[in-house]
Amino acid sequence: MKVCIVGASGHYGYALEGIHKRDGIQLAGIAPGSKDERIGELDRSVQAFQPSVSQYEDYRIMLDELKPNIVVINSYFNDNANITIEALERGIHVFVEKPVATTYEDLERVEDTYRKSSVHLATMLGLRYERHFFTAWKKIQEGGIGEVRLMNAQKSYKLGKRSRFYTKRETYGGTIPWVGSHAIDWMHWMSGQKFQSVFASHSTLYNQEHGDLEASALCHFTFSNQVFGSVNIDYFRPEQAPSHDDDRIRIAGTRGVIEVRGQKVYLINDEIEGVQELPLLSGGQIFDDFIGHVREEKKSLLSAEDSFLVTRACLKARESADSQMVVYF
Amino acid sequence: MKVCIVGASGHYGYALEGIHKRDGIQLAGIAPGSKDERIGELDRSVQAFQPSVSQYEDYRIMLDELKPNIVVINSYFNDNANITIEALERGIHVFVEKPVATTYEDLERVEDTYRKSSVHLATMLGLRYERHFFTAWKKIQEGGIGEVRLMNAQKSYKLGKRSRFYTKRETYGGTIPWVGSHAIDWMHWMSGQKFQSVFASHSTLYNQEHGDLEASALCHFTFSNQVFGSVNIDYFRPEQAPSHDDDRIRIAGTRGVIEVRGQKVYLINDEIEGVQELPLLSGGQIFDDFIGHVREEKKSLLSAEDSFLVTRACLKARESADSQMVVYF
Repeated sequence: MKVCIVGASGHYGYALEGIHKRDGIQLAGIAPGSKDERIGELDRSVQAFQPSVSQYEDYRIMLDELKPNIVVINSYFNDNANITIEALERGIHVFVEKPVATTYEDLERVEDTYRKSSVHLATMLGLRYERHFFTAWKKIQEGGIGEVRLMNAQKSYKLGKRSRFYTKRETYGGTIPWVGSHAIDWMHWMSGQKFQSVFASHSTLYNQEHGDLEASALCHFTFSNQVFGSVNIDYFRPEQAPSHDDDRIRIAGTRGVIEVRGQKVYLINDEIEGVQELPLLSGGQIFDDFIGHVREEKKSLLSAEDSFLVTRACLKARESADSQMVVYF
Repeated sequence: MKVCIVGASGHYGYALEGIHKRDGIQLAGIAPGSKDERIGELDRSVQAFQPSVSQYEDYRIMLDELKPNIVVINSYFNDNANITIEALERGIHVFVEKPVATTYEDLERVEDTYRKSSVHLATMLGLRYERHFFTAWKKIQEGGIGEVRLMNAQKSYKLGKRSRFYTKRETYGGTIPWVGSHAIDWMHWMSGQKFQSVFASHSTLYNQEHGDLEASALCHFTFSNQVFGSVNIDYFRPEQAPSHDDDRIRIAGTRGVIEVRGQKVYLINDEIEGVQELPLLSGGQIFDDFIGHVREEKKSLLSAEDSFLVTRACLKARESADSQMVVYF
């Protein structure tokens, strides 16, 4: 099975890690996907374990010549949709950075092309596979908190000094889609409810000369069955903080409350005295799971439909924040 | 200085505790404020340390006969506004349950009457005085997190079996005003920013036969200077949980993040390695602070204007949740 990588502006590391875990997967070629995109770091990572890999300047020529089974796409965020379409049209399975599109038009084109294909597609919503989030999801599926009623998710990052393409809405897409997508996915995934509306706000103030990049954002989602969920996102985590991110979710249900914080999972419910810290389950590895699905060994944790739905939810939240209006699904 | 208490359906305990701390304060009389309101528990508490206290059936007669300097008001929530007006018209200082009114009309009548008076009024937003919240506020005032950008506050309670007046919107007022008012106050108080808009949701589902009582709610506030804040409120804390409530706030600023959780305060900022747990400061006692203001010894931590503003913010949030529309200030 042959894999190519297009671009080096996202989480291609997921793919390298997954390839390591599997036999019979050949990393065949790499290429930039965006104009001026640098892929030197990807090249160095790849050379370290597979020096025979080919490097192309034009990813389309690479896809035509190498005919990979799977393409890993992570260029400037606005280019990922077009690259995805090029791959889908060639019948290649797509493992692409989230969100798969930064505009409604691109998302619709991707969805249309996907539905005409017979391949697998998933976005890099890798946090589903993190042990703490996977464990919380599993416990909710088992009824550990009863019916989900109220959710609060958090993404907090260090800003540092980001590449120039982060500073333009056109190439970056926005902080809600880029950072928030994970948290938006958790809420939908963990509750099993349908998105109904979103009201959101975001601000570029105090973004340390990062142009259009929003340094803070807040989203308020309503779901079916009168379930509600908030997402707070910020780039204000101090450089000195103990970790790059501070990802969290708290979910209150009819029987208890589950919480992911500091990579741990805490549960209180009507059967527990005090707070229980749950033993962490393994959620697997995202690219390994993708390959397992492609090889029809299993159904992957993350479907193409989920990938599209979360992308749409991100774009609606961004639209709400831009317009300061409630946006409906 | 003479104090009377009207009603026993709220936090009159604040007043009893404050009276204990002061010399020269006489608890003169108690009376119910709402039709059918039971004040037996108040009566027993009072008898324990001041058996000479008079009990009245009609609080207006009590106010006229005993002529207290201060009246403590905590009847069914919808009656507190009218009782407050009766007291203000008699020139009596008012320490009243929050929110001071459950409708816009009542709030306006209270404000009008207050402005014609020359007395002090404060609502029972007692959590400002809790050491952990007071410490967080103080640290923010000192610049510990720079400019406030994003806030997330939480109120989570055990439901238990509530008095019948909680089950009717008319007498209860709603979960956002009753439970959420504290968190709404923290955001305004800690950020120093002005309320601009609110979008909110609430649901009575799974309220264990509590009629109109909303068991979950979520509010999204925007403030001046593009500051945003969420409040999540639920009555889903399991009976077995270690405490009645799980009150929290997390505030991200341009220099760091401060967090109140489990009655502790945690700070990360650009001068700290790791997470610092702050030593807790004393915020004083709310009724003692009220008396200090009345006696012109000091300016109280909580003004009448703040009390009115938070009440209005609660009513706007409730209006938003009822209408599913954004409501502006």
